[in-house]
Amino acid sequence: MNYSEMTKEQLLNEKSALEKQYEDYKAMNLKLDMSRGKPSTEQLNISSRILDILTSTSDCSTEKGFDCRNYGLMDGITEIKPIFAQMMQVDPDMIMVGGNSSLNMMFDTISLFMTKSPVEGEKPWLEVKNRKFLCPAPGYDRHFGITEYFGFEMITIPMTSEGPDMDMVEKLVAEDDSIKGIWCVPKYSNPQGITYSDETVKRFANLNPKAKDFRIFWDDAYCVHDVTETPDKLISLMDECKKTGKTDLPIIFCSTSKITFPGSGVAAMAADENNMKVIKEKYKYQTISFDKVNMLRHILFFKDIDGVKAHMDKHKSILKPKFDIVLKHLKESVGPTGVATWFEPNGGYFVAVDVMEGTAKKVVELCKEAGVVLTGAGATYPYGNDPKDSNIRIAPSYPTLDELEKAMEIFCVATKLAAVNKILENM
Amino acid sequence: MNYSEMTKEQLLNEKSALEKQYEDYKAMNLKLDMSRGKPSTEQLNISSRILDILTSTSDCSTEKGFDCRNYGLMDGITEIKPIFAQMMQVDPDMIMVGGNSSLNMMFDTISLFMTKSPVEGEKPWLEVKNRKFLCPAPGYDRHFGITEYFGFEMITIPMTSEGPDMDMVEKLVAEDDSIKGIWCVPKYSNPQGITYSDETVKRFANLNPKAKDFRIFWDDAYCVHDVTETPDKLISLMDECKKTGKTDLPIIFCSTSKITFPGSGVAAMAADENNMKVIKEKYKYQTISFDKVNMLRHILFFKDIDGVKAHMDKHKSILKPKFDIVLKHLKESVGPTGVATWFEPNGGYFVAVDVMEGTAKKVVELCKEAGVVLTGAGATYPYGNDPKDSNIRIAPSYPTLDELEKAMEIFCVATKLAAVNKILENM
Repeated sequence: MNYSEMTKEQLLNEKSALEKQYEDYKAMNLKLDMSRGKPSTEQLNISSRILDILTSTSDCSTEKGFDCRNYGLMDGITEIKPIFAQMMQVDPDMIMVGGNSSLNMMFDTISLFMTKSPVEGEKPWLEVKNRKFLCPAPGYDRHFGITEYFGFEMITIPMTSEGPDMDMVEKLVAEDDSIKGIWCVPKYSNPQGITYSDETVKRFANLNPKAKDFRIFWDDAYCVHDVTETPDKLISLMDECKKTGKTDLPIIFCSTSKITFPGSGVAAMAADENNMKVIKEKYKYQTISFDKVNMLRHILFFKDIDGVKAHMDKHKSILKPKFDIVLKHLKESVGPTGVATWFEPNGGYFVAVDVMEGTAKKVVELCKEAGVVLTGAGATYPYGNDPKDSNIRIAPSYPTLDELEKAMEIFCVATKLAAVNKILENM
Repeated sequence: MNYSEMTKEQLLNEKSALEKQYEDYKAMNLKLDMSRGKPSTEQLNISSRILDILTSTSDCSTEKGFDCRNYGLMDGITEIKPIFAQMMQVDPDMIMVGGNSSLNMMFDTISLFMTKSPVEGEKPWLEVKNRKFLCPAPGYDRHFGITEYFGFEMITIPMTSEGPDMDMVEKLVAEDDSIKGIWCVPKYSNPQGITYSDETVKRFANLNPKAKDFRIFWDDAYCVHDVTETPDKLISLMDECKKTGKTDLPIIFCSTSKITFPGSGVAAMAADENNMKVIKEKYKYQTISFDKVNMLRHILFFKDIDGVKAHMDKHKSILKPKFDIVLKHLKESVGPTGVATWFEPNGGYFVAVDVMEGTAKKVVELCKEAGVVLTGAGATYPYGNDPKDSNIRIAPSYPTLDELEKAMEIFCVATKLAAVNKILENM
């Protein structure tokens, strides 16, 4: 029954029933973790073959005969570029292959622009004292962390079911030349799993920022990470930018962290010629080359984009039952009470739940006391501050199915208990 | 016979004999490369085992049970720290293990200080408009490249047989608080192969820089890279700094690039608690973790520092004959003429030759025309500008022994030909 329709007596009964359930869970002394988007051991194991795909006697040469074990090829081996190009929907010659972390490449790019603007004649961002960054939220806490670290004022952009509120984005960037960028996870957004609509992408490709060096940081982290049989489609931002003549706007990132091994995969970025010139000029001084042996392992393991897709199907078969459990519990246990809403994503790594306003912190705390660790409430907002104290990110990948069942039971009880208490307080 | 003792007629005879030899070499259409410190294929092959030391069925856990294939452990796996600690002569808890490139860690550290000074309250270096950096020269071109990229005025510090001219270093840093750092390769310096004397290290540990945020960038690239049976000894800078209470001065770097695979090794840095706090605060935002699987490979391959040393003996057995060839040719062919000087290093990757003043560019050009690529003349000085046009870096590791014999014959003829022409011009 919907809590909003309950009498005080009914609510008090519900509260005592929930408290009883909650105490029973607490007594189990569980230790369950739904805090981070970590692949499970089962997922890691499907990539095991990559560990010995090269052997002591392997030829580690590229097609052109370059020994991957030695120095050189600063922007990565040619053979791996078509794969990343297809993942990011750009041309292979727009690709710079990096180390093990796309987050690192994003950090490095912001860091670069702090000391050299991507546009000649413009101030380095460090010298723009009131520098600002747009942060669609709920979003990825590590994105917000980078711009907070570098002293940007972060402006929250509300998310809609089609992506960031583009009216607001368009208005803000047109008015204020101290706004230097926007964080985007365009496919299966972290945490909501929303894929930007065609119209949203087209509007991004047609932005008229007042700052000549405004850039769209397009983190395509989940570009091949479907979890249902009805995957979302994201159109190519770079293709759209070619149509509008604004290919200097986006800088695109992705990695194989959640495809092979987190931390031991390969990351890449893509940008048009002008941006890439500034970016590669920096990399030329930053390193001699990234880990080409690991790039070679990935090429041998996948062969091509179809190999990536076939591999992602294996991840899907492991992840889908986990998303199903999360959604089943939400639907059956929380749904009828009307105290929370959520998206049903077709991919990505998370389910974002909006619990009753003013109770997210309490829900996370209750879960923690019962042995279930969640991402901190507020983490999905700039400065860790969710103004409604409502959004919670659930990361179902790491626990086993049994653990997840238990963790979601507890989450649902905590969500309802916090809500019923809140309603009673305000009565 | 020493050219300075020759008559004009003798010099003209020598010139025509050298020209004849040079033309003969040119006619051979050789293609030889002594330009970069690249390990040879033979050297790479001694590390082949690292490629399949982990297999599909390996347990990739650390001693504490942490799965290296997954996210986490931002500062690296604990097991590898003692090895780097012994290489850099510091405590294991001072170590931050990174990606595949110590150059990248150096770049990142300068980049960090450009936006945040290592000392609270001090300006970020970008805001120090007349920022300067001390550059012992001849030195490593990629070091100079980083500080040039970030807009430092680079001040050349002459090298002596004991290391940089410490009188000059001490005087400059005491006077000018816009001097923010110094590049050092303290053991088997690039390119001369000089190891800093105990006194030099002690004087570094006792510097009194006017800038509170002056830092010594101590690139211990060749810490275990002996090539003779009479290796140099470098004392520990950090130990000396502990004695003077100035542990905040050095930031120390090294990697396994020239131990296992260049570009697919593991890099590390070391610093005291105060510096490391600033550095790790940055890494926390920059990445989730570096490639721990590759760290694990290195641990399994080496086990401990003795494993590293035993492995370096294999490199030595390949490199020593190459250094012997370089030195034999210099001694026998150039020595008697008195037109060049050089150090005989006990380790490292280079032999630095000082040819007759005003002829280095010409020698490199003559070599190039005869098919022998050398590092560009001047590259060992800030801004690529060797004021005496005299220093040339020879990198003997990559060519085969036969190639090296031929390349050194040509180098010696070119060196003498350029000198004899210069003398005749000035007669």
